[in-house]
Amino acid sequence: MEAAGIITITTDFGIKDANVAAMKGVILGINPQARILDLSHEIAPQNIAEAAYVLRRGYSYFPSGTVHVVVVDPGVGSERRGLAILIGEYYFVGPDNGVFTYVLRDSSSDPQRRIIHLTEPRFWRRRIAPTFHGRDIFAPVAAHLSGGISIEGLGQEITDPVTLPFPQVRKEQGRIIGHILYIDRFGNLLTDIAEEDLLALESQIRIEIASKEIRELSPTFSAGQAGEIIAYIDSAWHLAIAQVEGNAAQSLGAKIGDEIKVLPG
Amino acid sequence: MEAAGIITITTDFGIKDANVAAMKGVILGINPQARILDLSHEIAPQNIAEAAYVLRRGYSYFPSGTVHVVVVDPGVGSERRGLAILIGEYYFVGPDNGVFTYVLRDSSSDPQRRIIHLTEPRFWRRRIAPTFHGRDIFAPVAAHLSGGISIEGLGQEITDPVTLPFPQVRKEQGRIIGHILYIDRFGNLLTDIAEEDLLALESQIRIEIASKEIRELSPTFSAGQAGEIIAYIDSAWHLAIAQVEGNAAQSLGAKIGDEIKVLPG
Amino acid sequence: MEAAGIITITTDFGIKDANVAAMKGVILGINPQARILDLSHEIAPQNIAEAAYVLRRGYSYFPSGTVHVVVVDPGVGSERRGLAILIGEYYFVGPDNGVFTYVLRDSSSDPQRRIIHLTEPRFWRRRIAPTFHGRDIFAPVAAHLSGGISIEGLGQEITDPVTLPFPQVRKEQGRIIGHILYIDRFGNLLTDIAEEDLLALESQIRIEIASKEIRELSPTFSAGQAGEIIAYIDSAWHLAIAQVEGNAAQSLGAKIGDEIKVLPG
Repeated sequence: MEAAGIITITTDFGIKDANVAAMKGVILGINPQARILDLSHEIAPQNIAEAAYVLRRGYSYFPSGTVHVVVVDPGVGSERRGLAILIGEYYFVGPDNGVFTYVLRDSSSDPQRRIIHLTEPRFWRRRIAPTFHGRDIFAPVAAHLSGGISIEGLGQEITDPVTLPFPQVRKEQGRIIGHILYIDRFGNLLTDIAEEDLLALESQIRIEIASKEIRELSPTFSAGQAGEIIAYIDSAWHLAIAQVEGNAAQSLGAKIGDEIKVLPG
Repeated sequence: MEAAGIITITTDFGIKDANVAAMKGVILGINPQARILDLSHEIAPQNIAEAAYVLRRGYSYFPSGTVHVVVVDPGVGSERRGLAILIGEYYFVGPDNGVFTYVLRDSSSDPQRRIIHLTEPRFWRRRIAPTFHGRDIFAPVAAHLSGGISIEGLGQEITDPVTLPFPQVRKEQGRIIGHILYIDRFGNLLTDIAEEDLLALESQIRIEIASKEIRELSPTFSAGQAGEIIAYIDSAWHLAIAQVEGNAAQSLGAKIGDEIKVLPG
Repeated sequence: MEAAGIITITTDFGIKDANVAAMKGVILGINPQARILDLSHEIAPQNIAEAAYVLRRGYSYFPSGTVHVVVVDPGVGSERRGLAILIGEYYFVGPDNGVFTYVLRDSSSDPQRRIIHLTEPRFWRRRIAPTFHGRDIFAPVAAHLSGGISIEGLGQEITDPVTLPFPQVRKEQGRIIGHILYIDRFGNLLTDIAEEDLLALESQIRIEIASKEIRELSPTFSAGQAGEIIAYIDSAWHLAIAQVEGNAAQSLGAKIGDEIKVLPG
């Protein structure tokens, strides 16, 4: 895995305080050639599940060798471990608290996967603020990785990273029971039901969400009447619900974790 | 037109979801040298007119050869066309829905102008999500343009791009009737009345906005009393209204589209 | 002081309007190699004190030679001066209105310090909008500095820059009376009481903030019960107050400027 010199940052810091900027400054001090991009800084404060989902939506579009740093870290300064991970073409750096749940789950059978507990302070800033490992540990580690250092040197390999107990999609007798994982800016409901599972169903389907029933998949948002609730395959190839020229989450009163059912039509 | 390797992005995606990041990742995968800057991601959802205005405010300050991508695209996945445009020193890439209204209008007599309907899938991502042409078509096309590819190869030349029917400024007998086009972060009201049209008036003037009358142009915000409603020439050289140490839009109850009149004093 | 080619920008412009983008475009037109990073654009409109604080929190993490531009400028276009400053390893560019209060105060005994009143229009854009010196004066000056131009050529040296009258920390008989300087995204209260002053106290201490008493310093956020109000040393090595899994500012009704007392226990 050759480093690409590219680093993305995902945090719950917001963009008003100078904390993200401090991380970027630290990175440039170590690797002046690093190219730093924001993945998101608007993760809801301390919402590890949301960070895990947003990371999953964005990380794979970057060039091979990109380092993805995630700092949503309510346990900062406690005994929770810091991690550097190599999965496929990407590096990940951040706390061992579940923010990497999806990428870890999707790579569980990958023999090349490396998960390193960050234990080598020579790759950190000299003085570590107990409340800001993002700046003092994760940013410098990411900078070193982006500059080509080997992940093995950063600490001890481990095999038991923390993952969150996300609800499982249930598939049974031509039915699929899934969940809303995320609500995007437009109020669209993004779910954990994969397009390939929908395509595997043989009969006509109907989709139940809140007390609403939808009888077909729309190719795109403009395929319905204004106000209509439609189902479609989102840009990450999963089932999603939108309201044409509206906000599905508000109109349906839907929230993250709610069930969505695909039933024989 | 030599490419500058610079790409700006304007969207209504907000900055929480990873969609803007996905576009940037795709661009870097095609042109690792591209320099990507945000123009705005806070366009009101699906507000094409606002995108057109914000683009106009920002695009011309960038170096010659910059590629400006705009993705405010309620009709994504429908039959609306995708465009790449060359106007003067700049490239523009996005949907054919009016987001380029101002730059097209201002260049209608330019014989060098090129408007290309994007029909060549070899410059796109392999699989196109019907709901995310920003990532799968416009970002890769912009990346190729920024790397120096010729715009002509991207598709078929057309001459009938979509433009929005913006209200026209009326000039008659020493009067000018214009409109509020935008309300900025400070609550300032930005209008379509150009400084040069004001300067062409021969008599003293008074300005009517909401039920307020203003009798002179102030050079800058600090030229009035706190709370005073003032008129000034904004940084794009058009008439604008502000409240000293206040928010003119709120205080006047003004909104986009409202008329503003310049009358003989 | 060798320029690093890095420029950070701090403004109260927000990120919807294209104003920040216009500044970046101007910079790249002058120094195509400049690397531009956002420090913050969410400073409360025209809040000079907040800009001064946020700048102080972020600037020192950047590489030597970085140029920090700050544009929170209610007096733009008036007689207030524009400045370029060299302090230690960093350049600062912006209005002479107090945004540099902290960096100036912390460097008052530095004989190498240079404060230049920007009087040389050849380093500005040709036409200056009275309401947007950020784009037309400060951005181009920063671009020239980042490209290696000498600060002395930008104008006249001065010795009387404007600073804000920030409240002073009072230390008396084993007591310290300080103030809340900032409330961060998590509702944490950041103060002007330095860790070293706390460490210099000999007895047990108790901390009083808004009718609340705290009897110890916690190492980190996870060291208390949910809802508990804790005191800790923040990542800039000053006393701070947080609520475990909560928002201290809201729970305590605390605001910027409020006193915080450290008393013998």
